[in-house]
Amino acid sequence: MAAVACVGAGNVGRSWAIVFARAGYRVHLYDISEVSLTQARETIKSSLHDLQVNELIDDSAAIFERIAFTTDLASAVANAAYVQESIVERVEAKREIFATLGTVAPPGAVLASSTSAIAPSKFADAASGPHRCLVAHPLNPPHVIPVVEICPAPDTDSETVEAATRILRGAGMEPVILSREKEGFVLNRLQAAVMAEAFHLIGSGVCTPADIETAMTKGLARRWAFLGPFMTGHLNASGGYQDYIDSLGPMFRALAEDLKPDHPWTAESIAAVRETMEATIPTDRVGEGQAWRDQRLMQLTRHLAKQDDFDE
Amino acid sequence: MAAVACVGAGNVGRSWAIVFARAGYRVHLYDISEVSLTQARETIKSSLHDLQVNELIDDSAAIFERIAFTTDLASAVANAAYVQESIVERVEAKREIFATLGTVAPPGAVLASSTSAIAPSKFADAASGPHRCLVAHPLNPPHVIPVVEICPAPDTDSETVEAATRILRGAGMEPVILSREKEGFVLNRLQAAVMAEAFHLIGSGVCTPADIETAMTKGLARRWAFLGPFMTGHLNASGGYQDYIDSLGPMFRALAEDLKPDHPWTAESIAAVRETMEATIPTDRVGEGQAWRDQRLMQLTRHLAKQDDFDE
Repeated sequence: MAAVACVGAGNVGRSWAIVFARAGYRVHLYDISEVSLTQARETIKSSLHDLQVNELIDDSAAIFERIAFTTDLASAVANAAYVQESIVERVEAKREIFATLGTVAPPGAVLASSTSAIAPSKFADAASGPHRCLVAHPLNPPHVIPVVEICPAPDTDSETVEAATRILRGAGMEPVILSREKEGFVLNRLQAAVMAEAFHLIGSGVCTPADIETAMTKGLARRWAFLGPFMTGHLNASGGYQDYIDSLGPMFRALAEDLKPDHPWTAESIAAVRETMEATIPTDRVGEGQAWRDQRLMQLTRHLAKQDDFDE
Repeated sequence: MAAVACVGAGNVGRSWAIVFARAGYRVHLYDISEVSLTQARETIKSSLHDLQVNELIDDSAAIFERIAFTTDLASAVANAAYVQESIVERVEAKREIFATLGTVAPPGAVLASSTSAIAPSKFADAASGPHRCLVAHPLNPPHVIPVVEICPAPDTDSETVEAATRILRGAGMEPVILSREKEGFVLNRLQAAVMAEAFHLIGSGVCTPADIETAMTKGLARRWAFLGPFMTGHLNASGGYQDYIDSLGPMFRALAEDLKPDHPWTAESIAAVRETMEATIPTDRVGEGQAWRDQRLMQLTRHLAKQDDFDE
């Protein structure tokens, strides 16, 4: 099986290394820092242990063995068919690493960035082959959340999008492919829509941060965990989606017009959110919180895998 | 235990009858139509059977026995401490039923409407005691989704809000209490925010309806099923929420400003959504789809009930 290079061994890069090694790829995980690689070794071992305990993988040792850790970028990417970059989120840093990757990676390798916020046109041109660059943005952490959105730059070849899609799908991910570059891509635009309205409701005193959390976890996301927003509507009216939009469309249109386009983030509402979050998970225990989150995501993955789709 | 009256025996009213009967209340389920009551009897029996098979209740027969079906509104509400109205979504119909309830319900009874879209000030004044009227809006179906949002009218007594909260919480629901009336309440404003942006992305050709479904079910809702949007952020940065908003706040602010305030629903994008939905669940099988959805919600309820909260 071909090799994959993961460039940057922070939280996202480590998780990507698991994704590709789990799928059978030989993975080269690069970081500029030995300390970071040492930490990555430990957290990857620990994540693989948890995946095996949760019966999501069979042989954690074999998967771990497929990952090589290195501070030598040229050797990391030398045989790579696919490079997944997950370094710091700064345009200049992205330009620099893509310029280097354009030189040291094999000419046919796909060069993908994990960036959640930087449009690929802002760094793809720094690589000698901008046609093979794109964004492949996961949610954190990708080894337990399947979605990945693929956003091409204007110069990206369709073959590159197809190759990235095939490799990511083969690694168990669920690609969402944008037809063209769009600020915030899809995932963060949907998150931004929820957050902007949540901050509007909190900032105007209608409800509390805890209420927003309850509305989502005890309400909306119960359906969204297996029905998207459209299928939720389709099944909410006896005549399906047309019936739904005929009866509720006018309300949603009116609400959409009433959504605040100005950003409602204020120091006061951010402080209210922060205090509510810290009352549940103190900031010095966020690491424990992340471990708990990942356990919950693994359990949810197992649960969802056992469920039947409609008509099965 | 006190009695509860459920007024209207459609999908929502039937589900409410299960919620209150399951909690031990004597429930009077009223509908103007005998046909509707006959259907309600069958679907309630079937839902109780499913709840028992899924080990979410112990004794479906005893719960069913606590529900009385009647076309006599006065006798349905005669001993009610709490009335949950779930009739058709039209202001005039709400005004008419609240005028009647104001006369026939005991003076101390809470009068709650399930409306998803009508502000309580538009019908509470029709009742002789508008101070005891409010909205208690669930997601569909409430017997397998715990959230309920409580929205008072300007004239609603705080004692009424407290009584409704106590009764609903006692029945296993998770109330979100709005401090004041707000168009669309909380749940549908959050849904509208997601839908407006989803339609914007589809309408502008960035992605397909199926992509939106994937983004939610294979991505965002994996975390939102147990972490609200704020806790998701708190655990996405090693320094917690402040760290998260310091690093990603500027992006989300910029995206929020870029979200389209104009409604993006077009006949073309609605048709695209409808076709995608019907390819998965044909409109003439929506009833089967709803049964599948409810099974999935029951399984998800069981799954979530077995999970530990942070620090347990």
